[in-house]
Amino acid sequence: MNKDWIADEMRKMQLQIVKELELLDGQEKFNEDPYTREEGGGGVTMTLANGEVLEKGGVAFSKVFGPVTEVMKKQMNLNGKAFFATGVSIVLHPYNPFLPIIHMNVRYFEMDNGEFWFGGGIDLTPHYIDPKRAGVFHRQLKEICDEFHPDFYNKFKKGADDYFFLPHRNETRGVGGIFYDHQNDTTILPKEKWFEFAKRLALSFPKIYAQQVQMGINDTYSEQNLAWRNLRRGRYVEFNLVHDRGTKFGLVSGGRTESILLSMPPQANWTYQYTTELNSLESKTLASLSKDIDWVSM
Amino acid sequence: MNKDWIADEMRKMQLQIVKELELLDGQEKFNEDPYTREEGGGGVTMTLANGEVLEKGGVAFSKVFGPVTEVMKKQMNLNGKAFFATGVSIVLHPYNPFLPIIHMNVRYFEMDNGEFWFGGGIDLTPHYIDPKRAGVFHRQLKEICDEFHPDFYNKFKKGADDYFFLPHRNETRGVGGIFYDHQNDTTILPKEKWFEFAKRLALSFPKIYAQQVQMGINDTYSEQNLAWRNLRRGRYVEFNLVHDRGTKFGLVSGGRTESILLSMPPQANWTYQYTTELNSLESKTLASLSKDIDWVSM
Repeated sequence: MNKDWIADEMRKMQLQIVKELELLDGQEKFNEDPYTREEGGGGVTMTLANGEVLEKGGVAFSKVFGPVTEVMKKQMNLNGKAFFATGVSIVLHPYNPFLPIIHMNVRYFEMDNGEFWFGGGIDLTPHYIDPKRAGVFHRQLKEICDEFHPDFYNKFKKGADDYFFLPHRNETRGVGGIFYDHQNDTTILPKEKWFEFAKRLALSFPKIYAQQVQMGINDTYSEQNLAWRNLRRGRYVEFNLVHDRGTKFGLVSGGRTESILLSMPPQANWTYQYTTELNSLESKTLASLSKDIDWVSM
Repeated sequence: MNKDWIADEMRKMQLQIVKELELLDGQEKFNEDPYTREEGGGGVTMTLANGEVLEKGGVAFSKVFGPVTEVMKKQMNLNGKAFFATGVSIVLHPYNPFLPIIHMNVRYFEMDNGEFWFGGGIDLTPHYIDPKRAGVFHRQLKEICDEFHPDFYNKFKKGADDYFFLPHRNETRGVGGIFYDHQNDTTILPKEKWFEFAKRLALSFPKIYAQQVQMGINDTYSEQNLAWRNLRRGRYVEFNLVHDRGTKFGLVSGGRTESILLSMPPQANWTYQYTTELNSLESKTLASLSKDIDWVSM
């Protein structure tokens, strides 16, 4: 299982996911935009805009390598002199405010000194939180995690709660999901199994999102629901630009800006001191943006 | 000239600016939102939404003090144990795409060990750059600077070019202006004059913006112009959340989020790989987003 093979597999996962998301959208196709990186490697950024379900979607594959720069050393604590990284990243922004934003990422790192590690996760950001739908999502993740290790779901669910958090708003980004990073312990799982876990997550992604779409697609919405969606998208922007390690690292280390900022919503709004009505769906959503909620039993 | 007097003066500047901006808008009034800060001090945030000229405007006054925390020590290189800071910050987002976004800030810092300094600046972010209008703006700034010191305009104009820059886009935020920070050299100007410079800038601000509005207010615009405005607002968001020192510092140090993010546009859009037509106003604008342009002679 060498690094180039893993990258090839990642690219196949991207194509499979794109195919299924096109079926899910039913109207628009993804556009394919390959690029090369001066220092080594490149990627293929696939984007869809103004679909039937998806207002904006991005599925990005990358396989990059080269010398470890000073900024990488400092920000990522890397020991070796040269790195190799490959992965698939997805963010989908649906049009209907009652459908959730979703994000997935699986990645593999390898250093010239032989170190390697896996990272990844899936998290859900509903504009309106419905505990039942969040429960469906978390049970799907738990099922996958349980196939690999009995501790994974709890551990990585906490990882998502801690990671997808906006301290300046005292809000989680959404209902979380799972998030893991820097996993290289072969006493927990052999390397092949770490890879299979990532692959299983990636290939389950379209079905997981299809389930969310199925549950919400017939919900009707008003102008007020759209306005709220746009405000929540603003929070998504805040998280990604202020806190997200991948975004920050990419932007400061000279990554490909348009691919990194694929995660930005098509539109986001900010209103000073937007207030929600007591017992409204909006205020119930705000009240559910906290860590440590046991979504699996909802 | 003690610190409380300076803060009182800052508050008066805020009120004067708000009065003149209300006349300029002609339709909406600013809403006044006072708050206190647990650790000491507070502020008054004044906001206007959906005016005739201004889609969103914020004029914020603050006077805050308290112990220097670890995060402040690290991020701001502060030596003393307690700090005092007061200032006025403005960001205006006009509706018409042919009117520019404008930002102004004047601030005063004092430490318990007697150190003090001034900072501030005004910069202009046109959605569409018109060199003549940028020239008017820069000549107004130069005139004010020249009243205080022959070197100020060139020095602080360079300060703005360097500060209001998005490395990940290789673009300046707009046409710059002036920016200065940590000014405490009383051999250049006595302390009173440093304060007067700040006051002169603040009180000139409404006239400077009124001039821009007068030049552009009758420009008609299309849906395409509005779409471009929203994309440029997206860049404004990127600068403020990724690079702006004040925003970053405020968010990580537990500042008042809604007041810090007053600078966010009412709406911003992101489109993957938005392309501009050759020789269009949009591509000419992109070509002008660079440092070291001699706007004064335009």
